[in-house]
Amino acid sequence: MDRDETAVESLDDIKYDDRGLVPAIVQEESTGEVLMLAYMNRESLERTIRTGRTWFYSRSRRELWPKGETSGNVQKVVRVFYDCDADTLLVKVVQVGAACHTGRHSCFYREIGDDLTGSASG
Amino acid sequence: MDRDETAVESLDDIKYDDRGLVPAIVQEESTGEVLMLAYMNRESLERTIRTGRTWFYSRSRRELWPKGETSGNVQKVVRVFYDCDADTLLVKVVQVGAACHTGRHSCFYREIGDDLTGSASG
Repeated sequence: MDRDETAVESLDDIKYDDRGLVPAIVQEESTGEVLMLAYMNRESLERTIRTGRTWFYSRSRRELWPKGETSGNVQKVVRVFYDCDADTLLVKVVQVGAACHTGRHSCFYREIGDDLTGSASG
Repeated sequence: MDRDETAVESLDDIKYDDRGLVPAIVQEESTGEVLMLAYMNRESLERTIRTGRTWFYSRSRRELWPKGETSGNVQKVVRVFYDCDADTLLVKVVQVGAACHTGRHSCFYREIGDDLTGSASG
């Protein structure tokens, strides 16, 4: 049994929600920057493992969605982790170009309020 | 208007799902390590901003949940970001002790399959 077969078997450990989805945090491996969050169903997770590129499930379009298909901004999958409850994925990637459809490297470019460091140090 | 009032006003920008929830990725500020994902409703997000400590909404217990209340493993909030769709939060924190209830620093301690670097470099 090769590496991919082992990986795909372990997909049965993942707990999908009542829509059959699991949130997937995408993190840039080299910098640690969190790039985006999207959703996967079992099929998109399996394609992600098999192809080494991220595939998501679009809740609005109700279809599988290969990240970067039109833009070329693909995400090369390095490692895939899952959490203690097995209901969230963490996908470490090499990001080609920008992750965000706005052209920004990360989708998390807006901040709530000011820097809260004052509260944190108290 | 002080910093916290400005922050709380901007909470109206966040798009909660049909359960009134938004996923919140918690990332350690100093290391970039992704620690956990949990859910917030508007009230828990407001408490997070006002107190400088993370508050979540427990979907199983259906109540607000102050992280680290019993364990002492609180998360001091440094900055809160939201994504391009305003439906995911990224909370950068100083983690006291372990983030995971298993005692591990991060909840993402399990990996699907082997190291997929081979696929990523292809």
